[in-house]
Amino acid sequence: MKTGKLYGLGIGPGDPELLTLKAHRILTTVPVIAYPTLENGKVLARAIVADFIRPEQIELPMPLPFSVARSSQPAYDVAAEKIAAHLTQGQDVAVLCEGEPMLYGSFMYLFQRLASRFPTEVVPGISSTMASAAMLGAPITFRNDVLSIMPATLDGETLRDRLAVADAAVIIKLGRHFAKVRTILAELALLDRALYIERATQPNQRIVPITELEPEEVPYWSLILIPSQTQPQ
Amino acid sequence: MKTGKLYGLGIGPGDPELLTLKAHRILTTVPVIAYPTLENGKVLARAIVADFIRPEQIELPMPLPFSVARSSQPAYDVAAEKIAAHLTQGQDVAVLCEGEPMLYGSFMYLFQRLASRFPTEVVPGISSTMASAAMLGAPITFRNDVLSIMPATLDGETLRDRLAVADAAVIIKLGRHFAKVRTILAELALLDRALYIERATQPNQRIVPITELEPEEVPYWSLILIPSQTQPQ
Repeated sequence: MKTGKLYGLGIGPGDPELLTLKAHRILTTVPVIAYPTLENGKVLARAIVADFIRPEQIELPMPLPFSVARSSQPAYDVAAEKIAAHLTQGQDVAVLCEGEPMLYGSFMYLFQRLASRFPTEVVPGISSTMASAAMLGAPITFRNDVLSIMPATLDGETLRDRLAVADAAVIIKLGRHFAKVRTILAELALLDRALYIERATQPNQRIVPITELEPEEVPYWSLILIPSQTQPQ
Repeated sequence: MKTGKLYGLGIGPGDPELLTLKAHRILTTVPVIAYPTLENGKVLARAIVADFIRPEQIELPMPLPFSVARSSQPAYDVAAEKIAAHLTQGQDVAVLCEGEPMLYGSFMYLFQRLASRFPTEVVPGISSTMASAAMLGAPITFRNDVLSIMPATLDGETLRDRLAVADAAVIIKLGRHFAKVRTILAELALLDRALYIERATQPNQRIVPITELEPEEVPYWSLILIPSQTQPQ
C-alpha cells in the first residue's frame, strides 16, 4: 500500500489570515491533523486554525513537553509513532507548526524521526520574528546589515557578545530572562533602540515601551527587536 | 476627503501559493497595485502574483535601481510621490514586496517616506531565507542556537568574524561574491555543512552541491544555508 505524506505545516505567528494559501489548502484537505499539546495546557497551534478544521478530519493531539531538554525526547518518539501509524495506512498527516517549522520548531524533532521513512514536505510559515517587525512598524535590516536571532535563554556573556556585533537583532523567548536581557541592553546602550512586543498578531498582542515593563509580567511568547540604525539618507 | 491606505504586501519568495491569505485578500481587492521594475528588466514581484491581478486594477510600475546606493534615493522620491498621488485621492495602494517587506526590502525606503503621511499597514511575507530551509529539508536552529543572516556583499573579514560565532547562518545575495564566501567557508571548515540554493520556490529553483558550483553561474538570488549542528539526541 502506498504510504501517506507527512506535511510540516507552518501556520504563522497567530493571525489565521497569515497562513499561506498553500498551508490553507493542505490543512483543509488532509485526512489527519496533528498538533502539540503542551504540559501547561496551551494548544496555540490548533487555536490558530480552529475555524479551518472540519469535523470529518482526524485530529491527533501530541502531548509534548514545553522545553526540549534531552529527557523530553521520548515524547517525540511516541508522537512520531502515532503519526507513522497513519502514514503507513496511506493517510497524509499535516503537523501544525506555529511560525516557521524549521526555526526553533518542535516539528524538527519529528522531521528527524520521520523524513527518512516517509515522503515529507515542509511548508514554510511566517515567523513571529518577521511578523513582529511589521506589527512594530520597524524595518529590520538594510543593505549590508547582519541580523542575529537569539534566544534570551543564552547565558549573559554570549548574549552580550552576539548583540555587541549585530547590526540588528531579535531576542526571542524572553519570559523569565527579561531582566537579564534588559541589563545587557542598558550596558550596550541599546535600550533606546529596543522594541518590545508580545504575542505578535494574536488577538491579545501587546506592545509596551521596554522601560515600562515589569519583569514578572513578560511571557515566554515575547521578543525584543533591535532594528538596524542604517539610514539611506 | 479620506486618504487611502498604504499596504506593504509581503508576497513571499516566488511560489504564488506562498502568499498569505491576508496578502491575497488585499491584493485582489485594492484599486492600485504598485511594484518595482528594475533596471535589468526583471519584474519578479509582479510575475509572482500575475494570476491574481484583475484587469480593472490600476498598475503602478516603479522604476527603481537594482542596488540601493545613496545616489539611488531620488528614484524612491519619485516612486513615493506617484503612490502618494493615489493615496491622496482616497485610493488604497498595495506595494508588492518579494519575501518579507521589513527584511532587506526596497519597500522600507517607501515606508520611510510615506508611513508618517498616510495610514500604513505592513503585511509580513515568507522570507526566502526561511523558505530555503524548507526546500533544502534542513532544520535551521534548535534550542539555544543563534542564527545570523548576512549579505555576501560584506567584506571578507566581517563575514569571517560573524560566521565564526554563528551556530547557524544564512548568507544571502551571493552572485559575484560566491568565490569569496566559498574560500571563507573552507577556512572555517564549514563547507561540509553549507547548503546552496538559488531561486527558492520559483519554477527554476536549483539546488546544487556547493563543491560543484562554478562561481560565474551563481545568480544574485541565491543563498547558502549553514544549519545548526545541535542534535537533541
